Amino acid sequence: MAALEFRLENTDPGSAARAGTITTDHGTIQTPIFMPVGTAGSVKAVTQQQLVSDVKAQIILGNTYHLYLRPGLEVLERAGGLHRFNGWAKPILTDSGGYQVFSLAGTRIIREEGVTFQSHIDGSRHLFSPENVMDIQRIIGGDIIMAFDECPPGGSDYTYARTSMELTHRWLDRCWERFHNTPDKYGYTQNLFPIVQGGTFKDLRKASCEYVAAKNATGNAIGGLSVGEPEPVMYEICDWCCQHLPAEKPRYLMGVGTPWNILECIGMGVDMFDCVMPTRNGRNAMLFTTRGVLNIDNKKWEFDYSPIDEGLDCEVSQFYSKAYLRHLMKAKEFLGLTIASIHNLAFYLWLVRQAREHILQGDFAGWKTEMIERLRTKL
Amino acid sequence: MAALEFRLENTDPGSAARAGTITTDHGTIQTPIFMPVGTAGSVKAVTQQQLVSDVKAQIILGNTYHLYLRPGLEVLERAGGLHRFNGWAKPILTDSGGYQVFSLAGTRIIREEGVTFQSHIDGSRHLFSPENVMDIQRIIGGDIIMAFDECPPGGSDYTYARTSMELTHRWLDRCWERFHNTPDKYGYTQNLFPIVQGGTFKDLRKASCEYVAAKNATGNAIGGLSVGEPEPVMYEICDWCCQHLPAEKPRYLMGVGTPWNILECIGMGVDMFDCVMPTRNGRNAMLFTTRGVLNIDNKKWEFDYSPIDEGLDCEVSQFYSKAYLRHLMKAKEFLGLTIASIHNLAFYLWLVRQAREHILQGDFAGWKTEMIERLRTKL
Repeated sequence: MAALEFRLENTDPGSAARAGTITTDHGTIQTPIFMPVGTAGSVKAVTQQQLVSDVKAQIILGNTYHLYLRPGLEVLERAGGLHRFNGWAKPILTDSGGYQVFSLAGTRIIREEGVTFQSHIDGSRHLFSPENVMDIQRIIGGDIIMAFDECPPGGSDYTYARTSMELTHRWLDRCWERFHNTPDKYGYTQNLFPIVQGGTFKDLRKASCEYVAAKNATGNAIGGLSVGEPEPVMYEICDWCCQHLPAEKPRYLMGVGTPWNILECIGMGVDMFDCVMPTRNGRNAMLFTTRGVLNIDNKKWEFDYSPIDEGLDCEVSQFYSKAYLRHLMKAKEFLGLTIASIHNLAFYLWLVRQAREHILQGDFAGWKTEMIERLRTKL
Repeated sequence: MAALEFRLENTDPGSAARAGTITTDHGTIQTPIFMPVGTAGSVKAVTQQQLVSDVKAQIILGNTYHLYLRPGLEVLERAGGLHRFNGWAKPILTDSGGYQVFSLAGTRIIREEGVTFQSHIDGSRHLFSPENVMDIQRIIGGDIIMAFDECPPGGSDYTYARTSMELTHRWLDRCWERFHNTPDKYGYTQNLFPIVQGGTFKDLRKASCEYVAAKNATGNAIGGLSVGEPEPVMYEICDWCCQHLPAEKPRYLMGVGTPWNILECIGMGVDMFDCVMPTRNGRNAMLFTTRGVLNIDNKKWEFDYSPIDEGLDCEVSQFYSKAYLRHLMKAKEFLGLTIASIHNLAFYLWLVRQAREHILQGDFAGWKTEMIERLRTKL
């Protein structure tokens, strides 16, 4: 079994967008790619069969924080890892738990050693350190695992951002050492991606890109964006980081974002994305479609028997009507959550496939501008 | 297009169990059959695709009370009926709303004219009469529609049961007249099934069977059972009704029941069943399997990575493990509701297919006794 490989297939002449192929021991991923979030070992309200056939997902995420708390490591280890536990045979990426510790958990104390936090489920106290987060992700068994970082809140000042970035770098060293001193557990190769931090400050981001790049990991991530900063700042920092991260490795922008965010950031050279937006917003009746955004709860869809999205190559989006989905959401039927989640995810996967085709054809830049205008339309 | 036909294929030599085929304008149904309940136009947490491929449903139910309140008649009528609205192309049966009015709605007043009741959603007042319930079911568009009846509570005394039955008979006459004076709305034939009532009193039940049989409907239903009376009484009355309903028409026992209830009543000559038990109990972690009953929340399944039910010919039951489903239920993941619902429904459909095979082979009676013991086992 072999470490992750990234083969660059084409770079768009009018932008920095790239098309490539990532190879892992659980199969290949065509980039740019969107990764559905499977928080606790399940992409919410969607079966693994639907993820393959309807959503056409190539890789999914697992959240270390959630999986560590529930079902817990013993259940995952005795299963032979998350792939065996939930039946997902394609690649899996796990985050490091850092972000959830800062956004979800109760009282937390950050020390050099790591972070102590309280479970949001039962209030129990736990420690996440760079070392044990490597061990935990070894047990969960993702093909790609993430370094443990501190994710400072949007709007952090320079001093906080620098101190936090330096801590993240020291933690990265410890992650790196632990990771390389522990074996793969389940017979396939795991890959550790380091994470660039540095808030909204270009000099910090540049220093962090260089620190991260020096590890010569099989892929690199950009963290700490889309955490409350203005959208133009997010774009500026993302673009800047892409310029300072190696071109021959996949770049993963964590937790971003809307369909237009994704197209813009593909144009800057990002290869991998994840976000809860398609599933979470779907459960709240917001649909992204090939013609624009709509709120399916809206009265205007009451008698609209046309398919949810005629332009999308997804059976669920073609089979069910807007009027039926609206009814399901109004009646709080579980099926509404499933249909909306599948549709939105299938749309995100369609979008990155379209982007890839246009990168391969070399006309991504112009297509992107037109597409963003269309996708932002309020229907 | 043609009225429903019932072709009797075999009667078990050791019991009154029958195997047959019901033909409707939306396709055929092999009996005995279990009909999943699609309350508000959706079998809860299950897609129409999964109902076909995983559950192998041949006919589903819609609830008139729920559909009338939400999405409402205008949405259904402009869609071209429920089949067009929810995309279910096989047969649909709708109940009359009577049962829900008595079990769900707020303050209700029963008069000769009909029942006024309050919506459980917004408290608004409505009237269900024999005539408008026919009109409503015409609009919903079920292949089989049910007469409007009063369903007296379990344990009703003789006087109440007789008075109520007589009202149900007068309402049946009005239903019958309205139904036969109104055309099919959507180009296929609808069929009205009358309902036997009479509480737990054999003379009333016999009178009701005779009253109902005299209509010469294409099928007949037994109502007012499994409403709180002891199980032996339910069996006794069901058996009695089967003896007094015509053999050449399908017999539908409404709202029953557990897997063993279904096998026992098949043995008495019942052909059609519906019940919310597989979906509702599934959502509450109770699974019916080919080896017995289990509570998937139980700690004993924490490390059990074996399939939910190896003996069942359902991909979902084979693909997902007990440990994974337990985790999903504990973590309150929507996917747990979907998997448990699909599994339980697939089990019910498997059970009636097995029963049918044994009736056709002529060894149903012995098989049933063994099977009931196995299915009741607590795992």
